[in-house]
Amino acid sequence: MREKKQSEFSLIDEFFAGKSHYHTGTLLGVGDDAAILTVPADRELLVSVDTMVEGVHFFNNGTQYSVDPYSLGHKLLAVNLSDLAAMGGEPLWATLALTIPEYNREWLQQFSAGLFSMAEKFKVDLVGGDTTRGPLTLTLQIYGSAPIGKAVRRSGAKVGDAICVTNSLGTAAYMVQLINESQHNSTLQLADNILIKENLANLERPSPLVAEGVILRDFSSAMVDVSDGLVADLRHICESSRVGAVLDRAAIPVHSALSNIGSVEERLSLALSGGDDYELCFTIAAGKLKLVTEKLAELGCAVSVIGDIVEEDVADGDSVKWRDGSCIDERGFSHF
Amino acid sequence: MREKKQSEFSLIDEFFAGKSHYHTGTLLGVGDDAAILTVPADRELLVSVDTMVEGVHFFNNGTQYSVDPYSLGHKLLAVNLSDLAAMGGEPLWATLALTIPEYNREWLQQFSAGLFSMAEKFKVDLVGGDTTRGPLTLTLQIYGSAPIGKAVRRSGAKVGDAICVTNSLGTAAYMVQLINESQHNSTLQLADNILIKENLANLERPSPLVAEGVILRDFSSAMVDVSDGLVADLRHICESSRVGAVLDRAAIPVHSALSNIGSVEERLSLALSGGDDYELCFTIAAGKLKLVTEKLAELGCAVSVIGDIVEEDVADGDSVKWRDGSCIDERGFSHF
Repeated sequence: MREKKQSEFSLIDEFFAGKSHYHTGTLLGVGDDAAILTVPADRELLVSVDTMVEGVHFFNNGTQYSVDPYSLGHKLLAVNLSDLAAMGGEPLWATLALTIPEYNREWLQQFSAGLFSMAEKFKVDLVGGDTTRGPLTLTLQIYGSAPIGKAVRRSGAKVGDAICVTNSLGTAAYMVQLINESQHNSTLQLADNILIKENLANLERPSPLVAEGVILRDFSSAMVDVSDGLVADLRHICESSRVGAVLDRAAIPVHSALSNIGSVEERLSLALSGGDDYELCFTIAAGKLKLVTEKLAELGCAVSVIGDIVEEDVADGDSVKWRDGSCIDERGFSHF
Repeated sequence: MREKKQSEFSLIDEFFAGKSHYHTGTLLGVGDDAAILTVPADRELLVSVDTMVEGVHFFNNGTQYSVDPYSLGHKLLAVNLSDLAAMGGEPLWATLALTIPEYNREWLQQFSAGLFSMAEKFKVDLVGGDTTRGPLTLTLQIYGSAPIGKAVRRSGAKVGDAICVTNSLGTAAYMVQLINESQHNSTLQLADNILIKENLANLERPSPLVAEGVILRDFSSAMVDVSDGLVADLRHICESSRVGAVLDRAAIPVHSALSNIGSVEERLSLALSGGDDYELCFTIAAGKLKLVTEKLAELGCAVSVIGDIVEEDVADGDSVKWRDGSCIDERGFSHF
């Protein structure tokens, strides 16, 4: 249970300590038993945690498709920032729990560079962490804030609200499908696939919609990020808000990159189950739609109205349906 | 990369959601994209994270010595509370990142019971988490608070301060040694070992000194918890404070359970490298010693004065020595 190679302390010093300090509330960061932080009295603290496991959430090596460590660092912070965005939060801090099989200087350098590229972009101070030896497992805790009472919960959707989603869906799910197929079919040359080349960044280096979430917290009644699949995530809103949702098939914004792939139903399925898109799904009173659409357009973010919040059908087990009452065929990402 | 068994959401609902709510600042716990928390305006927020990995920090199965999941849940919260105690913090919240190889109802029930037994004892609200599939890896983030400016850093030790440690040291390290030996020697029957029977709880279910830390924040100039070994942890104080430390061999409080084991030097080595004792090591102006010793005694906590803070010897690489200037032979827990 004990061994001595590179010490944890010098590893932290070298790759993670003192690399970001954007907030005056960061009184003490990496390097003590705990970080010391202050949250302004007029703000709520928002916290969320996400883990990425090799072989489950990504492939690191030993397969045709491996994610580079820079992208892993980028994505680990991005997926957590996406959770924060879904509350309308502004980023403050992060802590990192890094379990790695061995000391690999090059890997750590690249991972750290990817992580801090996002930390710089979104003004996140890394204030603590723990590095341990073991199977590659990456856990990041994100901290942010919002004015008191302004964070957007899943539970606020009202009957009559419009259901919206940002930008478009489906590329990340399609990339995952191609990667999975390539694991079992070595003739599939991922590197030569033009779609992969152009769209892999959607899967590997997602852009969390933090600024968009901050705008939406003044307008939306409920919000989630699309991390497990649009229908699965919308279902969380419905269950928390005790409402139902009806969607319009033609309104689902399927990504244009998928336009030549499979059938309409297959493309729709990718968009509805796209577990890694990190778009925002929100509900909003119809009267606010025009203004919020304009404000998001200024950030280059499109909004699609995909359906309406309706009364909960307690007799029926499924809260999300097509408008004609038929069931939606989708598979969200299930962790077990 | 996708599969469907037990869903993450029902697993969280069943074992981790809504089981603790002690703090009015917990506005929204498990079940949204992020938790919503408020920190009183006159308090600093303290945060720390610790990870435990199967096969590195504990053995779960497949070996003669396995830790039961109840103890794992207990220890995961305890080691994090110990970090908080070393700052003088009072516990508020925790989030849990749980990576498990499969859905095992009995394991989860016991792990959850162990975790929440400590959460109840120390009034910790579990406010969020992530459950993923993969090699058993347990990460907990602890949140606490202290009055503004009162958290005890490692950097405040002054020349002339006394160096103290709570209670006694060495049993956890000795248990680890016995367990390691038993992995390579099947004739060693751990279950029959009377020392193991009586002292295994020190290793498996440590008691974090939270109330003691709160008292010490009014008196001590610097503090760490003994998680990596007394000398290794004291060295952190010396490096942060830019001071040296001299220790008195006879003053090291070796646990009485070790009194019949090996040589004096071997017992001392266990006490100095006891990586899992979770006692508190602190520095304090000599004039405050009597009062703090009395106050801790009321909690049943003993204090040993083990040495003094001296000027940093910049010519020498080692900040912690015996009083006669000789080097200390110890091995702290090194993570790599």
